[in-house]
Amino acid sequence: MGDELMTGSSQKPLVAAAFGLKPSRYPIWFMRQAGRYLPEYRAVRSKVSFTELCQTPALAAEVTLQPLRRYDLDAAIIFSDILIPCVAMGQTLSFDKGEGPVLSHPVRSQADFAYLKRPVAERDLGYVGEAIAKTKASMRPEQAMIGFAGAPFTVASYMIEGGSSKNFTEVKKLLFTDRSVLTGLLDLIGDVTIDYLTMQVRSGADALMLFDTWAGQLTGLDYREVVFPVTKRVLDTVRQLGVPVTYFPGQGADRLFELAGLGVDVISVDWRTRLSNAQRILQGVGLDVSLQGNLDPQILIGPEAMVRERVRALLSEVRAANPRGHIFNVGHGLLPHTPPESLSWVISELRAQT
Amino acid sequence: MGDELMTGSSQKPLVAAAFGLKPSRYPIWFMRQAGRYLPEYRAVRSKVSFTELCQTPALAAEVTLQPLRRYDLDAAIIFSDILIPCVAMGQTLSFDKGEGPVLSHPVRSQADFAYLKRPVAERDLGYVGEAIAKTKASMRPEQAMIGFAGAPFTVASYMIEGGSSKNFTEVKKLLFTDRSVLTGLLDLIGDVTIDYLTMQVRSGADALMLFDTWAGQLTGLDYREVVFPVTKRVLDTVRQLGVPVTYFPGQGADRLFELAGLGVDVISVDWRTRLSNAQRILQGVGLDVSLQGNLDPQILIGPEAMVRERVRALLSEVRAANPRGHIFNVGHGLLPHTPPESLSWVISELRAQT
Repeated sequence: MGDELMTGSSQKPLVAAAFGLKPSRYPIWFMRQAGRYLPEYRAVRSKVSFTELCQTPALAAEVTLQPLRRYDLDAAIIFSDILIPCVAMGQTLSFDKGEGPVLSHPVRSQADFAYLKRPVAERDLGYVGEAIAKTKASMRPEQAMIGFAGAPFTVASYMIEGGSSKNFTEVKKLLFTDRSVLTGLLDLIGDVTIDYLTMQVRSGADALMLFDTWAGQLTGLDYREVVFPVTKRVLDTVRQLGVPVTYFPGQGADRLFELAGLGVDVISVDWRTRLSNAQRILQGVGLDVSLQGNLDPQILIGPEAMVRERVRALLSEVRAANPRGHIFNVGHGLLPHTPPESLSWVISELRAQT
Repeated sequence: MGDELMTGSSQKPLVAAAFGLKPSRYPIWFMRQAGRYLPEYRAVRSKVSFTELCQTPALAAEVTLQPLRRYDLDAAIIFSDILIPCVAMGQTLSFDKGEGPVLSHPVRSQADFAYLKRPVAERDLGYVGEAIAKTKASMRPEQAMIGFAGAPFTVASYMIEGGSSKNFTEVKKLLFTDRSVLTGLLDLIGDVTIDYLTMQVRSGADALMLFDTWAGQLTGLDYREVVFPVTKRVLDTVRQLGVPVTYFPGQGADRLFELAGLGVDVISVDWRTRLSNAQRILQGVGLDVSLQGNLDPQILIGPEAMVRERVRALLSEVRAANPRGHIFNVGHGLLPHTPPESLSWVISELRAQT
């Protein structure tokens, strides 16, 4: 892989930092940087449904590019949703006002599971690849195009609960009373995710990210036994494509203790966890990876001086943690009430300090 | 305090384990052991509102005693709610179906804050003391009566948001743009909590617990700066009453890193965190305390063999963690769909193994 690292994509600061190489400048992007907090996004979104937006390459590319026009960013993440593959698997995705996503036909039995299809990524999810290619054509060469998917457990959670959940009771019912349905579903999603991410790289993704937002909803024991193997399989397979892969193991530090043996380039750290603690835990389980994160996205509602102070505090935290590489980001997605100007303050403070 | 430990209350297994002394048997109780999963609770609850139930000593005592009639437990926790003091402070508490608690007059400005009253615990919250005294009269002498309150930050979160919250945006708005309102509110709740817990001990509580469910919703930096001082003040003050005090620092391991200097007897550990990790983190910050927890309450939907296996696994985990004392419990409150017989399996397995 060494040779490849010296060519094209490693000149992208994000890719270099992800591989633990010295980037030409400090890479920064924001999770959910394309989204409701931007008036130009709301203008596009007012004309189509969320699902249509994801499924129309020209529109998905347009909103993906919007933050790159406003801000001096080192990456774009393709505008999509982690539940888009569930549509290709046979569920219907809708968004209730204020209720979050709703998936039809929740998977709660062997019969529900049998109803699911294994999509052909190029055919059934090709619009995501098209959107990636279209977006990339308008990006600067030093900017990285990030493809992504939900991790098997997090996607399975939504498919089982039929949407968001507080206590993940249906997931736990399967885990504790009908485990083979859960493991079968995780394996299927694992296969689908591998195909889906491979297609994204073939379409031009320079880096990949796997979101496991709800991984923390299990005990360490259950995560390690049921979720870790399929997560590792997905990561091992897609890393062979040669692009760096980031894993977001959900909220809080607990999951970091369970990652021994995981093959991954970057761990994205939630804002609840100090980077120095994250680094110490990861070193304790033998993982030498780059870190991504982890401003509390809510700090962006604060006044400019406070936002700039927190950027400096995070840089001190990175120095204390001393990971092999660091990608500046928020610890979780931007919220709709984020004032757009606050991102400029973060970026300008980062550029001034580094 | 040494003398007192040798008398009455230290013969209670829970009190002994909380103080790091050798208990006469392994203490066990379940958070939210009085509640909706019990048919006899639902029978009482069907006749009165939740708030009336909390405010009527005979009924609160009755439902507090119900699990003690069914199970061989070492403690009862007085049936109440962490938001009951908010009523005495001037907010109105209601429970929307499926929506969780709703508090009127959310505190979002100095003017909202000025509207609040500081209650006189004996007068305005005396019904809780009465319920404690009434309950205790029917308990066996070796069983501990646990009093409790919400910790200042968690109570403040509800008072500010006006109920449950996903992103705690109103709390963060105060934190990042109008901090003195938040710190003023925390200090007031701190004073109210001290009075309230003192009244509970005077009424017969043998142990206290402070629930900080949402403490993990802040960064470590913000928790340490804004929340830790008032939390420490409450704990330092109520520990002078001579009863052991347990602090539940919310979901996940992150908050444990921030507890250096906290005066507390027991840390209650969420089920997301392995006890061995909790113990290592607490030792790292210099806290030598007893631990409480931490079965995933959802394991109780599993079959008997699996429930018993998890009890044994938790006991192994305790041996590996080797804290100065341990109180067997769930890592978070029991859920309404818990099959009542599963608690018997937990208790009988614990008794068989210890």
